[in-house]
Amino acid sequence: MTDKLAEFNSLFNPQSIAVIGASKSFSKTGTAILFSIIAGGYKGNLYPINRKETSILGLTAYPDLFSTPSKADLVIICVRAEFVQAIIAECAKAAIGFVSIISSGFGEISLKGKKEEEKIIKIARKNNMRLIGPNCMGLTSSEASLHALMNMLIPKAGDVSIISQSGTVGSLIACYGSEQGIGISRFISSGNEADLHAEDFIEYLAVDPKTKVITAFIEGIKNGKRFLSVTKEAARLKPVIILKGGTTMAGARAAGSHTGSIAGSAEIFESAISQAGMIRALDEKDLIDLAKAFSLLALPKGKNVGITGAWGGTGVLVSDACSKNGLQVPDLTKESLEKLDKVLPPFWSRSNPVDITGAGLDGDFFMLIRAIEVLLEDDNIDMLICVLPAFDSLYSKVKLRMDPELSDQLNKTAYGSMGPQEMEMAKQIVGLRKKYNKPIVGILVGLHGQKGAEHISFLEENSIPIYETSSQAARVLAKLSNYSDFLVNNQ
Amino acid sequence: MTDKLAEFNSLFNPQSIAVIGASKSFSKTGTAILFSIIAGGYKGNLYPINRKETSILGLTAYPDLFSTPSKADLVIICVRAEFVQAIIAECAKAAIGFVSIISSGFGEISLKGKKEEEKIIKIARKNNMRLIGPNCMGLTSSEASLHALMNMLIPKAGDVSIISQSGTVGSLIACYGSEQGIGISRFISSGNEADLHAEDFIEYLAVDPKTKVITAFIEGIKNGKRFLSVTKEAARLKPVIILKGGTTMAGARAAGSHTGSIAGSAEIFESAISQAGMIRALDEKDLIDLAKAFSLLALPKGKNVGITGAWGGTGVLVSDACSKNGLQVPDLTKESLEKLDKVLPPFWSRSNPVDITGAGLDGDFFMLIRAIEVLLEDDNIDMLICVLPAFDSLYSKVKLRMDPELSDQLNKTAYGSMGPQEMEMAKQIVGLRKKYNKPIVGILVGLHGQKGAEHISFLEENSIPIYETSSQAARVLAKLSNYSDFLVNNQ
Repeated sequence: MTDKLAEFNSLFNPQSIAVIGASKSFSKTGTAILFSIIAGGYKGNLYPINRKETSILGLTAYPDLFSTPSKADLVIICVRAEFVQAIIAECAKAAIGFVSIISSGFGEISLKGKKEEEKIIKIARKNNMRLIGPNCMGLTSSEASLHALMNMLIPKAGDVSIISQSGTVGSLIACYGSEQGIGISRFISSGNEADLHAEDFIEYLAVDPKTKVITAFIEGIKNGKRFLSVTKEAARLKPVIILKGGTTMAGARAAGSHTGSIAGSAEIFESAISQAGMIRALDEKDLIDLAKAFSLLALPKGKNVGITGAWGGTGVLVSDACSKNGLQVPDLTKESLEKLDKVLPPFWSRSNPVDITGAGLDGDFFMLIRAIEVLLEDDNIDMLICVLPAFDSLYSKVKLRMDPELSDQLNKTAYGSMGPQEMEMAKQIVGLRKKYNKPIVGILVGLHGQKGAEHISFLEENSIPIYETSSQAARVLAKLSNYSDFLVNNQ
Repeated sequence: MTDKLAEFNSLFNPQSIAVIGASKSFSKTGTAILFSIIAGGYKGNLYPINRKETSILGLTAYPDLFSTPSKADLVIICVRAEFVQAIIAECAKAAIGFVSIISSGFGEISLKGKKEEEKIIKIARKNNMRLIGPNCMGLTSSEASLHALMNMLIPKAGDVSIISQSGTVGSLIACYGSEQGIGISRFISSGNEADLHAEDFIEYLAVDPKTKVITAFIEGIKNGKRFLSVTKEAARLKPVIILKGGTTMAGARAAGSHTGSIAGSAEIFESAISQAGMIRALDEKDLIDLAKAFSLLALPKGKNVGITGAWGGTGVLVSDACSKNGLQVPDLTKESLEKLDKVLPPFWSRSNPVDITGAGLDGDFFMLIRAIEVLLEDDNIDMLICVLPAFDSLYSKVKLRMDPELSDQLNKTAYGSMGPQEMEMAKQIVGLRKKYNKPIVGILVGLHGQKGAEHISFLEENSIPIYETSSQAARVLAKLSNYSDFLVNNQ
């Protein structure tokens, strides 16, 4: 375990980095990566390598890897394919440990390129050098403030790591994540995987203390046996969420022309990853929805969901979504019923979902909070889906369309400024979550999404993720529960 | 047909509305509805009915329905359940045509309530009066600037109509819609449907010139035969998108306690609605994603999708999504290949998806535009999914995190301000869409979502909808294509 950490330490925490292919021209990939490393706030030594220039982007440039003040732990190569082999030979001479080859034009385009790739690997193997790529976008390691992606993406820092055989899809995932408040720890664009494969990185991330959740976009697997044994081991340590591309003929064809790999049969893959305890994502957004849940939530002890808020038909939607995802919506215990009878209006649903009826619509969330606590106290309930109000941002938007006189009148009412009450509600729910430590996820009524609703950001920052739909809320809880089962059965 | 229009005209375009239950207190539902009608800009006569007050919210109040200056075309009742029957009797005497009963406490809570409901229907039937509700939230008719929902929601105006047995779910849908730029024409919260059922409104909306797409949230159907025959007829005239609640035991139980209806068997419903040409939504967001597609796009002639942009693995994701949804990703014709060989870089994918490789990353979208046009020209391609750049908003966000000196440097490069080029690209794509009239949908690379990207709003305003994921982009096109088949087979 510690071996793996030591092995990859100088890749993810390099003291010195050399970038080959940076120049004065901003249209060069090397320049973009150098720029990104500077912009991202990297604190180590950074050496542009260029035979013609003495200074690039304010940094001293060096003619070759032998002239740099210290040896580079990581070399990033961004030159045309035909020049790569010579540079790899230079890296070997300079006893470089890690090389990320951004350059494309190898195995993904032709047999000739594939052979070129093999020559490069040969040099690397002989010299104890590990290669990432070629045909990749670079990497991110938030711990080291290292942002070396050719698209200059600087995602929010956090505890979710990404391995992607497609740099673009990995970037999409990182962007989605940032928008959902989910930060990235390491992001490795693994490209053609001539040397280091996705499973090598999974093996490292499994023991990496800076990674809580591993996510991967996989188009093709080069060594199926090793991939499965590594991921099964990793899944016992932390959640591994996989998005598989090329699961259909059309997708496999597209993947073939993209990374030169042949996508495996969808069914075999599906059954193998589920046996290995991996969590399968349906698409790029689902992957982040799942990562958010695994990053923020405790694992549930069973499959029983308590549902509240649940104004009107939202309880129906959430119940359907739970059932479809294999979760249970159990009856309430007599004790819970009695507790709720004491606080809720006479015609409340008297069952799970706990529909608090019109209560709370005026900004008094006492009944909602009490319903949440009763469900959390109930030993028969393992987790909660709460339909939460975002009324203030709804009315703020409505007010923009009113004439000012009417808007003033509305301001004098309960609907005028529910913001403080909604924030108070959020604080109380966070308090309850901490007290009972059961997973709670929210979906919203009122204004959808998180735009402008402070209490929603507060909830997410305090481990109560909000989902856009009843389906996604139920789906992530089901995956949490399945993973919990896997851990119990594979101790 | 015109009969239906005439029959419901005074409900959706009332000259006068009376609200019973409005008072000086803002905590009353009647006051909220009255307020909302004023705020929404309703131009007709508005009569608060109240025995104690002479003026409410600046309007003259009247003691009863007989005292108003003109007869109300629509009466909205928001008083406690026990007072409703007497008011219905008063409505009958005043020869009112339409009454929306917001009040709850009827069939949804008890047998006694159910009997009360039946008494009310009896009075209505005898007097040619039509009832909406009880236990509903009100209605919206954008044509009449009529916004009479108890939650004071004023959705954006547009051509999508909503019928919802749950006012909350209907409101959720309307909110999602507004956020997606989709406007609402009519929104009917149909509640317990004691008298008027969802299918009565579907029948009207089918011939309503202000409705292009019909959407409905259905928990239970009271008259299955009529529902199916009406919706089948409606589906031949315009798309009818259905979200069904209560399709599982847990959901049906929740629906039972909510609207007093018993949810039908999911399988029977599923097969019936597909035979009737209806489009089934998976959840509240899917419904709006579908409504957006049907509102904005022409129907495709076949199932063949052209994919471009498709940087790296995004082409794999989109291809998989197309296949999974029953669409085809056909090979390119020799002619198209030749055309593309002339413009794309040497190592482009030479197949569909048309991966334009790194082209465009510097803000020159000539190759992307040309690839789109070649696919539109190809007779073998029925519709397009384009992976579109939203790089400018991505870099704008990155720049916020840089020190100003670096940000200045970036500004001088192609990455500094791609906004104008992205807008120019959008204009050209819109031009192509108009020229070829094939459906085009987009997914984004760069910053996800529509936040801050002007060219994305421009595309959507010009009938090129953008979806969050490859899955949704493919799904809506597949539903479009299936509906097109239904129309051909049911002429």
